[in-house]
Amino acid sequence: MLERSFLPRHLLGIEGLTADQIVPFLDLAESYVLLSRSRSAPRDALRGQTVINLFFEDSTRTRTSFELAGKRLGADVINMTVATSSVNKGETLLDTASTLNAMRCDLLVVRHAQSGAPALLSQKVEASVINAGDGTHEHPTQALLDALTIRRRLGRLNDLTITICGDIGHSRVARSNIHLLSTMGNSIRLVGPPTLLPSTMAQLGNVSLYSDMDEAVRGADVVMSLRLQKERMGAGLIPSTREYFRFFGLDKRRLGLAAPNALVMHPGPMNRGVEISSDVADSDQSVISEQVEMGVAIRMAVLDRLSRARMSP
Amino acid sequence: MLERSFLPRHLLGIEGLTADQIVPFLDLAESYVLLSRSRSAPRDALRGQTVINLFFEDSTRTRTSFELAGKRLGADVINMTVATSSVNKGETLLDTASTLNAMRCDLLVVRHAQSGAPALLSQKVEASVINAGDGTHEHPTQALLDALTIRRRLGRLNDLTITICGDIGHSRVARSNIHLLSTMGNSIRLVGPPTLLPSTMAQLGNVSLYSDMDEAVRGADVVMSLRLQKERMGAGLIPSTREYFRFFGLDKRRLGLAAPNALVMHPGPMNRGVEISSDVADSDQSVISEQVEMGVAIRMAVLDRLSRARMSP
Amino acid sequence: MLERSFLPRHLLGIEGLTADQIVPFLDLAESYVLLSRSRSAPRDALRGQTVINLFFEDSTRTRTSFELAGKRLGADVINMTVATSSVNKGETLLDTASTLNAMRCDLLVVRHAQSGAPALLSQKVEASVINAGDGTHEHPTQALLDALTIRRRLGRLNDLTITICGDIGHSRVARSNIHLLSTMGNSIRLVGPPTLLPSTMAQLGNVSLYSDMDEAVRGADVVMSLRLQKERMGAGLIPSTREYFRFFGLDKRRLGLAAPNALVMHPGPMNRGVEISSDVADSDQSVISEQVEMGVAIRMAVLDRLSRARMSP
Repeated sequence: MLERSFLPRHLLGIEGLTADQIVPFLDLAESYVLLSRSRSAPRDALRGQTVINLFFEDSTRTRTSFELAGKRLGADVINMTVATSSVNKGETLLDTASTLNAMRCDLLVVRHAQSGAPALLSQKVEASVINAGDGTHEHPTQALLDALTIRRRLGRLNDLTITICGDIGHSRVARSNIHLLSTMGNSIRLVGPPTLLPSTMAQLGNVSLYSDMDEAVRGADVVMSLRLQKERMGAGLIPSTREYFRFFGLDKRRLGLAAPNALVMHPGPMNRGVEISSDVADSDQSVISEQVEMGVAIRMAVLDRLSRARMSP
Repeated sequence: MLERSFLPRHLLGIEGLTADQIVPFLDLAESYVLLSRSRSAPRDALRGQTVINLFFEDSTRTRTSFELAGKRLGADVINMTVATSSVNKGETLLDTASTLNAMRCDLLVVRHAQSGAPALLSQKVEASVINAGDGTHEHPTQALLDALTIRRRLGRLNDLTITICGDIGHSRVARSNIHLLSTMGNSIRLVGPPTLLPSTMAQLGNVSLYSDMDEAVRGADVVMSLRLQKERMGAGLIPSTREYFRFFGLDKRRLGLAAPNALVMHPGPMNRGVEISSDVADSDQSVISEQVEMGVAIRMAVLDRLSRARMSP
Repeated sequence: MLERSFLPRHLLGIEGLTADQIVPFLDLAESYVLLSRSRSAPRDALRGQTVINLFFEDSTRTRTSFELAGKRLGADVINMTVATSSVNKGETLLDTASTLNAMRCDLLVVRHAQSGAPALLSQKVEASVINAGDGTHEHPTQALLDALTIRRRLGRLNDLTITICGDIGHSRVARSNIHLLSTMGNSIRLVGPPTLLPSTMAQLGNVSLYSDMDEAVRGADVVMSLRLQKERMGAGLIPSTREYFRFFGLDKRRLGLAAPNALVMHPGPMNRGVEISSDVADSDQSVISEQVEMGVAIRMAVLDRLSRARMSP
């Protein structure tokens, strides 16, 4: 009963959500993990609902995860991949919104190269909007799935030390994780090349900046490695992948500095030998493929809860 | 009972259809508007039927509309987007037809750059064929959805003055609309640059040609603006988009010349500031997004009626 | 009861399968031919199961066939088309495998330009893997559908003389057919330009090599023509398509040398006038479109049987 009042209309980002708003997504996703494993997800949960995956940037992995989540709950799922080149003006984005309204879209999953595009759409569409990654802003379902993975493995989601390594400044994954993990009461360490680690990040939640990877990893409960975007190198921000690995790669020795049984995480896809060594990626401490599984479950929970928010009076 | 004899096998164009053959599509679509809004379309209407969207030209918007229509009625919908480059010869189109027959396709939605391709396919496939736009020939579901939009807003579909503006000569949307609207007993005015307005258009139905936009719009009940294809400009047919807007753009002043509460229509996607001004596109008189909604309903009605035609003995 | 022990976990190739392992696929597919024709395939056969079409090479025809097969049996079907350029290293293929496991994929259909990629994946994924064509290695569902077509038309699948013509050396279709047809007790003749017909092919099953097309076709019960890949010509292996047709094209005269009512087969899409003449392709002896129909039925049977293998204790 009461819970209804907390049902969100959109999921545009983690920033601003309270722990009470975050935890119900994780709790519902727990049940979807089990139902996916037993192939018995409730196919009438989204029966008759239309989910549109509107991707202005291609991402086979994230799109597939949302498509699976929608189909397992019985929704009609439509993929719309739009070349950004033809959608340059905000004006046209609003025409897209009108079209989606007219098509009676219920749940709209949006990925866009521009920060804020999902929020802009959410002001114009009747559908509930889920941000599937927008520019350098947020990627909230990634943070939720990371949180679920940590909670299942470590038994709690508070009072942990979590190190995030790499191209923090450009990373929507990092931003969403920083918001979520500091809201839940954890200490966050950020480490990466100074050119990729703007000092403004220190203002987000309970965050410390490091330039030395060994120091950043020491004693951490979770080490989260981010994908190095190749385009950063052309821009002269990174000398070479070999140099990068030497200073910021997560290898066995460095992982040894972390807490015993510290978790290794990566949002994928990995550049093995660049930001992470293969033996670490494949070690028992790695929960990288568990993150993918949690991804489908979290997206089922998000679609389901936003849909219920629409239904409630 | 009797109605069965009117059920069409294909929908290749509007030309040649009588009012008695057109109206049942609109009537059935009315009910699908309501069922789509209440998320209660009958999911067993096309259960077990295979709808294939065979698009030789890409069109996210039209493809999505048909995909939604098919899925809401419970069909298995398959998207086949084929690069035209690999399908140059009619011979190969016929091999495609054989393949579709062998796959037991029931309803085939075809878009093709060549006029007549859907008709050619319809002679070879066992499926019912729906023309989703062929070259400069026809786009019958667009004309049906435009008609439904007009009928719902103005309460009738006869004795209206309807102005169609722009690149008429190359427009399959214009051709299908001219056939439908003149069959239903309306007066049609066509206006556009002389290079884009062949005099042969005057032979289609109850049609008058105009070269002056103000004259063409004066007193009209409906003003339908067409998308200006950018490729017309490279060919020297249009001096510039600014010139085009000055002579043929639909702006507030010109709309003021039309009948009070005249409808503004556009098949989308719009070039705002080229063929239509933003204030007109977003005004209360604009029914552009309603056209999109009617599009899904019309396609549901077309799929449903053609399917019933196949089932009837 | 007993049959369960023969249910295969993967379908990676025909090589190594016994007749007892091949025939059940054909028998089950027979029933799916009828159920597809009457639009009454059992939609709960794969209810709740996830089929992923993982195509590293694009193939609209094969992908569509598997998609239809999966949907007709009620599975959730997801298409993942991956540009090979981004997946160069085996390492990354294994990361893809982890992702698919985490997404709880049940049946994985794989096409890949590298021979052995599906087998490699099958060692790492929990899903049952179906090879949908890998490099120059195998294309087992093509051989099964060809076998079903022959058995239905000629009433048996043994003691036949079957001629395969064209670019044998590079053809996975030829290799899978050679394995299947020789296992079932047929005589196989291979004919093509010497540059495209490696002598090692003679070691596969009951096979004779020919360089003269007339000789190869004489008295054959089945003549199977293969698609000439255009890229062979650039490499100087073929002088011209006209020359190719003169020496190895299947025309009326040559077909006249075969047994009366010999079957004409082609895996499609055809190059008419290159490897086969149009009158032969369209003649009563051609079963080319029947092959496509059998393709959907065989893929339904393969998905169904592999799924049952997973379910059995």
